[in-house]
Amino acid sequence: MIQEIKAAGMDCEKFIAEKVAEVREAVGDGTAINALSGGVDSSTVTMLGHRSLGKRLRTVFVENGLMRRGEAGWVVGLFRSLGVEVEVVDARDEFFAALSGVTDPEVKREAITQTFYRRVFGRIVRESGARHLLQGTILTDVDETLAGIKRQHNVFAQLGIDPQAAFGYRILEPLVQLRKDGVRKLGRALGLPEELFARIPFPGPALAARVIGEATRERVETVRAATAVVEEILAGTPAFQYMAILHEDRVTGMRDNKRQFGQQVEVRCWDSIDARVATPSRLPFEVLERIAAAILDRVPGVVSVTYNIAPKPPSTIEAV
Amino acid sequence: MIQEIKAAGMDCEKFIAEKVAEVREAVGDGTAINALSGGVDSSTVTMLGHRSLGKRLRTVFVENGLMRRGEAGWVVGLFRSLGVEVEVVDARDEFFAALSGVTDPEVKREAITQTFYRRVFGRIVRESGARHLLQGTILTDVDETLAGIKRQHNVFAQLGIDPQAAFGYRILEPLVQLRKDGVRKLGRALGLPEELFARIPFPGPALAARVIGEATRERVETVRAATAVVEEILAGTPAFQYMAILHEDRVTGMRDNKRQFGQQVEVRCWDSIDARVATPSRLPFEVLERIAAAILDRVPGVVSVTYNIAPKPPSTIEAV
Repeated sequence: MIQEIKAAGMDCEKFIAEKVAEVREAVGDGTAINALSGGVDSSTVTMLGHRSLGKRLRTVFVENGLMRRGEAGWVVGLFRSLGVEVEVVDARDEFFAALSGVTDPEVKREAITQTFYRRVFGRIVRESGARHLLQGTILTDVDETLAGIKRQHNVFAQLGIDPQAAFGYRILEPLVQLRKDGVRKLGRALGLPEELFARIPFPGPALAARVIGEATRERVETVRAATAVVEEILAGTPAFQYMAILHEDRVTGMRDNKRQFGQQVEVRCWDSIDARVATPSRLPFEVLERIAAAILDRVPGVVSVTYNIAPKPPSTIEAV
Repeated sequence: MIQEIKAAGMDCEKFIAEKVAEVREAVGDGTAINALSGGVDSSTVTMLGHRSLGKRLRTVFVENGLMRRGEAGWVVGLFRSLGVEVEVVDARDEFFAALSGVTDPEVKREAITQTFYRRVFGRIVRESGARHLLQGTILTDVDETLAGIKRQHNVFAQLGIDPQAAFGYRILEPLVQLRKDGVRKLGRALGLPEELFARIPFPGPALAARVIGEATRERVETVRAATAVVEEILAGTPAFQYMAILHEDRVTGMRDNKRQFGQQVEVRCWDSIDARVATPSRLPFEVLERIAAAILDRVPGVVSVTYNIAPKPPSTIEAV
């Protein structure tokens, strides 16, 4: 049973001092490694790890080919400005090979998880000689994994899996007593800038979760372009999250007065407090029309754009 | 080259007298037959045919299993009130057999056309002994078929097909010089009630065109239920056309706190003058939410609802 620490009563400096001591004690004079995605949790644990271990923590950004446009450069630049060097490892070929022919969403998530842990990151860890892996698991991840709502990839211990036996390293999860609001408070105390917290949530399987059906290089590139349009136009709205989803269904369209059997992009924009329940944002119709026009203009092969109007439940935030 | 008759300058009584004479001369003392779908064109040609031939015209409504809820009863009742008996022929098994395994939209349309002409209606005509078939072809159908935009099933002669050789009957097309507005004017002059003209356009392949992928009995039933919701809520709006489309893509949803890999319905509502160009109606968000809630509540298996926001072009009115 994990003892929750609530954000409201949390003394950040005390928490940091305790966790720094714990991480130092666990790692001893060895080295640790962590994977940084650019999300709030992994960014916060990166800062905490560097506070604890300095250069004895190696931080890796795995370029899986599934991230948003410019993501790797943005993450590296941000952390460099905070004095943390991030190493980018290009693993695109391995991820797309693992995703080849995969259409079932669960199998897709599993393929990404396995490629990350067993192949790419597992290899990086083995070659690094590090015996400790720092992870940004939070209490909500544990809850949702135990409840079977979500498959989180970073809660082995709670599932009865021994990562040392399975993967050859020990996992440290210094944020596991916190929920999202606690992590945000901690991240700010560790010096992370506001632009990081202002980013909308992004799923673990990244753009592979934004493609219905097979996540090929070409289809991920299509949804990446559509995502850039949606994020550009909706930046600054008070919505909880917004996204573009590439459908597998083909629909009839017309280009240059000829029929074109083209693709459809679905746009979702959610109002929500904590993602447990959510309603589609009541965007002005002019904004919807602007999004549609920009996607049709800038994303090759797309002839149709829709906007989600179903709440969660029975919908979910993501489509796959 | 067909001589167009414009609605504005058209003398309906003179037109009716001329066409009645032509139809009587063509059919002589034989009999004719026609298929009534309940659309404006086939309804108008039915009235003109009965004015010409009385009971020597047999009018058939083919129940193909692809019509909207209550359609056959509505058509039969309407024409009975106008003194015209309509015979309903149940051909559902034949149509669903022909559609089995068919996913390509063109092949689907072709399967419906072929089943209608070569099998069902062809057989009805042969068994009836009629040698003349009355059809509601209008000039726009001819234009669009020649331009390759549309496959119309009722313009054989213009495509160089001899229906007498191919199907064993001669086709009479008394409306072929008119466009939609002329047919409406004529239909009113022939006594068709306003409720018929107030109906929104409905495609030839009916609900099979509203299903992406295979049009099975079950999937057509799903889109029929969604169509009923959309037509109920949007009845009375000034929109040109509105519809529900069942997607083939499966998306993640939640029912009773459990994941459900469910179906998605897309709603389209168009503002347009003549369907050549069209824009999505700027429906109030409350109306969109009401449509989504009713579909999620009343249509089994659906967990997601979207609203089309792309104009034509590059979209088209229908999805398949």
